[in-house]
Amino acid sequence: MTLLEHLREPRALKALPAARLPELAEEIRHFLVQAVARTGGHLGPNLGVVELTIALHRVFDSPADRILWDTGHQSYVHKLLTGRQDFSKLRAKGGLSGYPSRAESVHDVIENSHASTVLGWADGLAKAHRLRGGRDHVVAVIGDGALTGGMAWEALNNIAAAKDRPLIIVVNDNARSYAPTIGGLADHLATLRTTDGYEKFLTWGKDLLQRTPVVGAPLYDSLHGAKKGLKDFIAPQGMFEDLGLKYVGPIDGHDIAAVESALRRAAGFHGPVLVHCLTEKGRGYPPALEDEADHFHTVGVMDPLTCAPVAPPGAPSWTSVFGDEMVRIGAEREDVVALTAAMLQPVGLEKFAKAYPDRVWDVGIAEQHAVVSAAGLATGGLHPVVAVYATFLNRAFDQVLMDVALHRCGVTFVLDRAGVTGTDGASHNGMWDMSILQVVPGLRIAAPRDADQLRAQLREALDVADAPTVVRFPKEAVDDPIPAIDRIGGVDVLHRAPHPDVLLVAVGVMAPVCLRVAELLAARGVDATVIDPRWVKPVDEAIEQLAAQHAMVAVVEDNSRTGGIGWAVGQALRDAHVDVPLRTFGIPEQFLPHARRGELLADLGLTPAEIAGQISAALGRAAAGRKESTP
Amino acid sequence: MTLLEHLREPRALKALPAARLPELAEEIRHFLVQAVARTGGHLGPNLGVVELTIALHRVFDSPADRILWDTGHQSYVHKLLTGRQDFSKLRAKGGLSGYPSRAESVHDVIENSHASTVLGWADGLAKAHRLRGGRDHVVAVIGDGALTGGMAWEALNNIAAAKDRPLIIVVNDNARSYAPTIGGLADHLATLRTTDGYEKFLTWGKDLLQRTPVVGAPLYDSLHGAKKGLKDFIAPQGMFEDLGLKYVGPIDGHDIAAVESALRRAAGFHGPVLVHCLTEKGRGYPPALEDEADHFHTVGVMDPLTCAPVAPPGAPSWTSVFGDEMVRIGAEREDVVALTAAMLQPVGLEKFAKAYPDRVWDVGIAEQHAVVSAAGLATGGLHPVVAVYATFLNRAFDQVLMDVALHRCGVTFVLDRAGVTGTDGASHNGMWDMSILQVVPGLRIAAPRDADQLRAQLREALDVADAPTVVRFPKEAVDDPIPAIDRIGGVDVLHRAPHPDVLLVAVGVMAPVCLRVAELLAARGVDATVIDPRWVKPVDEAIEQLAAQHAMVAVVEDNSRTGGIGWAVGQALRDAHVDVPLRTFGIPEQFLPHARRGELLADLGLTPAEIAGQISAALGRAAAGRKESTP
Repeated sequence: MTLLEHLREPRALKALPAARLPELAEEIRHFLVQAVARTGGHLGPNLGVVELTIALHRVFDSPADRILWDTGHQSYVHKLLTGRQDFSKLRAKGGLSGYPSRAESVHDVIENSHASTVLGWADGLAKAHRLRGGRDHVVAVIGDGALTGGMAWEALNNIAAAKDRPLIIVVNDNARSYAPTIGGLADHLATLRTTDGYEKFLTWGKDLLQRTPVVGAPLYDSLHGAKKGLKDFIAPQGMFEDLGLKYVGPIDGHDIAAVESALRRAAGFHGPVLVHCLTEKGRGYPPALEDEADHFHTVGVMDPLTCAPVAPPGAPSWTSVFGDEMVRIGAEREDVVALTAAMLQPVGLEKFAKAYPDRVWDVGIAEQHAVVSAAGLATGGLHPVVAVYATFLNRAFDQVLMDVALHRCGVTFVLDRAGVTGTDGASHNGMWDMSILQVVPGLRIAAPRDADQLRAQLREALDVADAPTVVRFPKEAVDDPIPAIDRIGGVDVLHRAPHPDVLLVAVGVMAPVCLRVAELLAARGVDATVIDPRWVKPVDEAIEQLAAQHAMVAVVEDNSRTGGIGWAVGQALRDAHVDVPLRTFGIPEQFLPHARRGELLADLGLTPAEIAGQISAALGRAAAGRKESTP
Repeated sequence: MTLLEHLREPRALKALPAARLPELAEEIRHFLVQAVARTGGHLGPNLGVVELTIALHRVFDSPADRILWDTGHQSYVHKLLTGRQDFSKLRAKGGLSGYPSRAESVHDVIENSHASTVLGWADGLAKAHRLRGGRDHVVAVIGDGALTGGMAWEALNNIAAAKDRPLIIVVNDNARSYAPTIGGLADHLATLRTTDGYEKFLTWGKDLLQRTPVVGAPLYDSLHGAKKGLKDFIAPQGMFEDLGLKYVGPIDGHDIAAVESALRRAAGFHGPVLVHCLTEKGRGYPPALEDEADHFHTVGVMDPLTCAPVAPPGAPSWTSVFGDEMVRIGAEREDVVALTAAMLQPVGLEKFAKAYPDRVWDVGIAEQHAVVSAAGLATGGLHPVVAVYATFLNRAFDQVLMDVALHRCGVTFVLDRAGVTGTDGASHNGMWDMSILQVVPGLRIAAPRDADQLRAQLREALDVADAPTVVRFPKEAVDDPIPAIDRIGGVDVLHRAPHPDVLLVAVGVMAPVCLRVAELLAARGVDATVIDPRWVKPVDEAIEQLAAQHAMVAVVEDNSRTGGIGWAVGQALRDAHVDVPLRTFGIPEQFLPHARRGELLADLGLTPAEIAGQISAALGRAAAGRKESTP
């Protein structure tokens, strides 16, 4: 039995002699590589926090003390040390979540996998502790990348103001988010990393000894602290102290004793304190370290030795179709520029960046800035393409509305990972964009059904100079081309029957689903027309005309049913006085558990069989209803 | 003719001898007090930037150089100096906007009156200038209050990273937003304000002389700079320089020559530079300076000498009803706490703060932090009330969804200024909240119709411990109580007829409008039932049952038609297989011009006469349609 297998709760970890800890760290790293290679998941970030997590659980008493993880993909080690060692179904239906999960463990608090939230959570918890008289610690772990997000700054500003409210911020500084962290803050952190602040350390150490009550394991700490002095315990002045935060660091985040010592000291401050830990993403796993793009931020199922993917490469991804087309467009139009929020490679802008390095900006984990600066770029005569995951645009709704749309800026938003994404869990699904963007005046939304349409609609979007446009597509491999048999207005007709009963409005990737629905309905004697509106906002007038020729309309979309294209079509029909019954199929108003996309769609009833069944039942009811109303 | 009347464009201002400028400043102040007293508007902020604005237009060449204003309520002086001196219809229909407006002037760029956006705009414009080879300056003016917003930090991080991209940030530091600015940053600014950095100034001055090419009016600048040295030109180290920004300041923002000199130097840096100007909100107008709450941030129509409001005090405002009830609730429930984003007084939390100072937090202009920290407070066992203007919740949509709702936190959002607010223009209307919040699982929305309902529904909201709730109400005075004649499910019946044709669903303050619609319809022989759903999300099942007993349903709401309660009712009816025709009345999908609320509602067709006319026309069509479908 390994050391790890003995540790079923953090208390057991505290009892382990310090000398055994390197062995434990080694076991954990081995476990992570083997386990994540089997299932896929976040590897690099977790290899980087092995020692840091061990130290956190030795110094603090979770769950009484609250250990909070920003962007919880760095919580695998925390899971292992809090009794969750079955990684066999990691991120799969019924298995462990890839993020902290309150349903899994009392040691988990924040489930949200959007970045930069942890300091706000910590501020709220610390205020609550204070008001309710608690003395437990609140410890927030945040990456240097996440510090580029505006929320983190809003929180720091508040945390620093209350000099006597204890709160420990651990900056897990690996100099990267997905890619290397950018910006003035990153430069400042780099300065802190290399500052030769020995003199200041001495002053700081003296202050500390005078002010810190020494409780628990002081001898080890002091000795170790002295030994590590030159390397770890320098305390340069910096912006954190300017803000009013105590600053401790930088600490070697892979030296458990050094981290423990720093955390114990921080816990004694009785005020807000920032502990700056330097870690290495992918630590201890040479293939990860050698990967310059993202140090194996996430990996698919792979061979842990060769790192060869186990699944053969499939069809090209939507992302790569977009990325390749951007390179071609870039050659044709000098005014087209691109923005990414710390995800150059995941959103497919790598090739564009190589071809046109002056025309792409990574703004950090800062979606608000990506969007507002795009308004500035457009006003300056360029056409920016803001490429983000659909779910992350939620962060910049106000900027899309108030900065881009109100000012009639020609900005194209490319939303990758739209719809049900699956294994990353509730907060990664891109199922809200088509709802919240409905209210934005002048904004147009394209939902391409295949690669040809993506290329065409991206170009159509870039031709709009006075309004925001959105092009959204899902995560998986792109489907085979689906030919149109006709175009009415801006609407592609994909299937037609002589005397159709139902009009199926297929949004984007739901086109093949709707074609199959039509087949199933035909087998029941119900004839369907299937259309792809291409641009789903605004609703094309052709839909109103077509609807009037059918007994029922059904809209099928890969987005929240609430507020989505189904609702918009309903409004358009009412405004055109077409009171034909409408049924809408989409994601119900709930957060989705983690599972594969196909599993989730099946669970949600978004399968051809289920949709066909509901439509034919509704048609039966509609016919019966008509009969009843006949005098 | 005054000096001001001679100045019809910035060029004329440049030609004015420096010695005449104090006279001009005096004229502008006099003009502002007299003009704003006549119309109401933002007074304190504009009195504070008179000299700063004069200096900006003397040093830079607008519109080639871009002078950008954050939260444009500080742009009145800019308007006066760019040819807009008719303030007689300020903020009124057809008159000048209270904010910059591209339709008014080529000198205006950002119309958005949400704070903290200007640095992002400036970053985008500077990037565009650079890429297109322009050499014009980009100058962003931002208040110290707006620097507490996360967007500002995201932008600073990006601006600072490009050391050779020119961009001038003018921090207009009056130590206040509405109320005094809070947080670690404010403390740091205070430190900078008082730093005794003369030695550093000397070094900085030497550097400057060696590096800055001297172009234009160097003698005056240098002499003045030397004279002002001790007072103005100290350059303390600070977080801005840690970020990589050049820092110039602090400067006396009321000394035109000093500001001009600093701006000229900043313009010569050829990189990002921050100019820190100290100003006084309400400067030169004793009544404003004596007002501790907000230094006359905004005023209504008033006597400029006595400052007595011209209109007699009317009925209590919705805000005050909420504020008073919060004080009562605070006494009964120790777990209820409150959060505001730099608007303690405007959202009615002043009395609560006086009664329970430990239980209210002003987080700065930082809506994201207000919401995410509320999730932390709720997880820590408290029930937070987040009180913001409806339009500003747009900034925190992601946090409502991902932090509060996903984690099932009991947080109550109180949205003041919901619906059409009017004179502040496009970006202050609270017309999106009921649309974008529709998608949030578990969230409940209350739209009280009168003060009694507001008090009752606030308490109902506070009883929800495991989900977010929203209570929204408009800006104006609260209406007389509207009694219910029955309650079905959770729905109040306000009016009933024996054989009703149409079901009118009145959302919140649209209740009296709907009662009047019912009267008008009755005169045409159409009988209506009028209901107030009280909780408009989720849709009450009683609405579905009632709808089935009517020939038509009409939903009337003070929110964007798109995605609002009308759409939600439509979905609920479809899901209940109630295919009765539905008409929705709300704000069309557009940005609204500035005008009074009543004028806007009339222009949008949200009057009883218009609604009644449309309903009876639709009923006629529906009857005709039924006849046609009869075999």
